[in-house]
Amino acid sequence: MTTIALDAMGGDHAPRVEVEGAILAARELGVRVLLVGVETQVRSELARHRYRALPIEIVHAPEVIAMTDSPSQAFRRKKESSLHVAARLVRDGQADALVSAGNTGAVMTIARFVIGTLPSVDRPALAAAFPNMKEKISVILDVGANVDSKPEHLEQFAVMGDIYFRTIWGVKRPRVSLLSIGEEEAKGNELTREVANRLKHSSLNFVGNVEGRDVFRGNVDVVVCDGFIGNIALKLSEGLIEHIRAMLKRAIQSSLTSQIGYALSKRAFNDFRRRTDYSETGGAPLLGVRGITVIGHGRSNPNAIKNAIRVASELCRCRMNEKIEQELSAASAVPARG
Amino acid sequence: MTTIALDAMGGDHAPRVEVEGAILAARELGVRVLLVGVETQVRSELARHRYRALPIEIVHAPEVIAMTDSPSQAFRRKKESSLHVAARLVRDGQADALVSAGNTGAVMTIARFVIGTLPSVDRPALAAAFPNMKEKISVILDVGANVDSKPEHLEQFAVMGDIYFRTIWGVKRPRVSLLSIGEEEAKGNELTREVANRLKHSSLNFVGNVEGRDVFRGNVDVVVCDGFIGNIALKLSEGLIEHIRAMLKRAIQSSLTSQIGYALSKRAFNDFRRRTDYSETGGAPLLGVRGITVIGHGRSNPNAIKNAIRVASELCRCRMNEKIEQELSAASAVPARG
Repeated sequence: MTTIALDAMGGDHAPRVEVEGAILAARELGVRVLLVGVETQVRSELARHRYRALPIEIVHAPEVIAMTDSPSQAFRRKKESSLHVAARLVRDGQADALVSAGNTGAVMTIARFVIGTLPSVDRPALAAAFPNMKEKISVILDVGANVDSKPEHLEQFAVMGDIYFRTIWGVKRPRVSLLSIGEEEAKGNELTREVANRLKHSSLNFVGNVEGRDVFRGNVDVVVCDGFIGNIALKLSEGLIEHIRAMLKRAIQSSLTSQIGYALSKRAFNDFRRRTDYSETGGAPLLGVRGITVIGHGRSNPNAIKNAIRVASELCRCRMNEKIEQELSAASAVPARG
Repeated sequence: MTTIALDAMGGDHAPRVEVEGAILAARELGVRVLLVGVETQVRSELARHRYRALPIEIVHAPEVIAMTDSPSQAFRRKKESSLHVAARLVRDGQADALVSAGNTGAVMTIARFVIGTLPSVDRPALAAAFPNMKEKISVILDVGANVDSKPEHLEQFAVMGDIYFRTIWGVKRPRVSLLSIGEEEAKGNELTREVANRLKHSSLNFVGNVEGRDVFRGNVDVVVCDGFIGNIALKLSEGLIEHIRAMLKRAIQSSLTSQIGYALSKRAFNDFRRRTDYSETGGAPLLGVRGITVIGHGRSNPNAIKNAIRVASELCRCRMNEKIEQELSAASAVPARG
């Protein structure tokens, strides 16, 4: 049975949401969940549920990392935090994967330096799933684990993104692309021109450069970029969705007939909400770390926590890390072409 | 009277849309419009309207630049195109500003190399206006005129963006910010850390770094970034808006009650459409060129053309270029601090 170390103190409504998510996951997914956090708090949340028959255990961790702690503060000064303890459980083989909806920077730093990276990986990359117009998913990476990436890093991100997509969405030859400012090869910046050349000569199904708008068109499965750009793209999309929801709500409340219309079309709106809800897609894995690590949104609800656990356990079951190590070490053994 | 050289062959529905936009502008804005394009085509479109009393003239240009022409092809091989002829009219003082809804890359290249840049400007920057949640406008620049910008370029973009915002939106001390991946100064990449340091010591009202989601929050007026990132941000936003519209339409058509709801809330939807319609904001000026240059969207309608002409004539009337030259030459005379 796959064992998940869940940072019970991570999200905005921790540990309540984490406890509920853990119960859903243990009940529906057949995984064992270690709830890592302040024992008294976790226990009193657990007491609100029937969980005795479920494979759920508490692992005590006295310290709590705040959303305002800097990653380096969290890493250096809070060694008894839920995140540190959960990461050590993974490092020491007592858990297969780490799941947290906490401070993203802290999770990335602690996962990277406590659990460590895979031998062939230079830098881990954070992968985010975006729903697209074809009602499928496109994965973008890196969305913020690194800045000022070098061509060889983006090449590794492409390999890891390809494996992640194959593992979770079962597509045999994912269409891998590079985020740039024009489809022509000559367009882009220094970095993308060099990376495009490398990917063209790789064994991946590289379909070329894509522009910002293609992220939502559904013509590609994996979109590779530097973490600075990926993070801006992710935050911009979240901000715009929030903006449009607010605008629609205002527009609809501005007249009586519209209000009636709103009542009637509520089902459609809920459907729309669901589809733009990133929590449905199961969190963002930090690819390239020795133990599977999945980061949920700080505003995760119990369902989002469950989905993050689902993704983590599938990545374990399909041995994603073994595949990454295998493909990257094979790639680095072949002299560069092109 | 301000004279606008309008590329009549530019947009997707040229010259019909351009001719209608010119008539609206000449009638409502009190500007003189030179319709530059294939004379027979422009004349036959004009013949469908009453325009004799309006300050509209045709300037013949036999060649047409296609959306598929590369900027360098357009620049080198189509010297008798409407864009070249219009740019020469501005260069030679026969027109005050160039407006085109044509091939953005071609407009930027031809404006830059035919009209030239201002003496103190290293690189022109394309500025796009985004509607924000406070029902105001935030300006982002550069959205694609340059890639691999250096710190001094971004510093110039900030100065030009500040002047543009003051000119068009009448704000005395626009809040200038830098697009990055965290508000803390230490966050970001090499480029943004250097630029933040420069802007902090400038005379601008620099309010610090902003994240992608802040672009729509309305807490800042001017957002500065490299053109690679700005272009991705712009295209991503357009793609996401298109995606959400399609999703809403599908969701709403999927049930009978929703259809009734749709009919009733149609006014609200139209209002929403209008607010997310970038054509309302009047095109994107290419700041730093010797003659005012405004680029409209290829899918511009007559109203968008009129709005682009309105922005161009206001930038002329307020002598934006003189202000840019004055402030940048003063800034470069002062030794760098910080």
